Amino acid sequence: MVRRLAKHYGCPTEFTLQLLGGKWKTVILCYLKEGPWRYGELRAFLPRLSDKVLTERLKELEAAGLIERSGGAGAQSVRYRLSARAESLRGVLTAIYQWGDRHAVAYGVQCDDPLRGRKRKS
Amino acid sequence: MVRRLAKHYGCPTEFTLQLLGGKWKTVILCYLKEGPWRYGELRAFLPRLSDKVLTERLKELEAAGLIERSGGAGAQSVRYRLSARAESLRGVLTAIYQWGDRHAVAYGVQCDDPLRGRKRKS
Repeated sequence: MVRRLAKHYGCPTEFTLQLLGGKWKTVILCYLKEGPWRYGELRAFLPRLSDKVLTERLKELEAAGLIERSGGAGAQSVRYRLSARAESLRGVLTAIYQWGDRHAVAYGVQCDDPLRGRKRKS
Repeated sequence: MVRRLAKHYGCPTEFTLQLLGGKWKTVILCYLKEGPWRYGELRAFLPRLSDKVLTERLKELEAAGLIERSGGAGAQSVRYRLSARAESLRGVLTAIYQWGDRHAVAYGVQCDDPLRGRKRKS
């Protein structure tokens, strides 16, 4: 389900969170802020998501204007990337990622990082 | 429902978002980062939330160790504040708030700001 933006929110925080659209969409955006990725690459980063859910979330992000598909004819060459509209969210996405990275140990939690060593300057 | 933290997450972003626990809890934390508030004050900041939902979310945040209650005998004097554990989330909460505040106009969205003029140095 694509959540349409309302015209009015109770506070700026509520608007940002509505736009980001929940946990998995935010996680996908965090990967895409590091550069464009093929579906199969995103698939490998998110082994706990089913194909069905990943495909749905990508469609929702595209419908919300936050990501774009680019590439050639074959499905293999299609890449997903942040849209210009989503570029401004980089600071928010980075803050969310970095907090988790820095504080996981203090919470007794282990986080994988599928992008370690693969981060691009984009 | 208090979502217990798992021991293992697929990436740092997923862990942060699981800890924050969804839209309304994050919105409540954003208010509490500006200082301690009484239940009635939080109630007034969040007119779209029912008493039932606000009370539940506060209990969940307390159970997760992210907020604390303090104050005297009467319910009127009880205040909610960020816990020491949640203090490190300030940067994330600020990034989410500020993005919404700065970009709402570009998205054709209007955001109230119940804290305007009431922000405390805490």
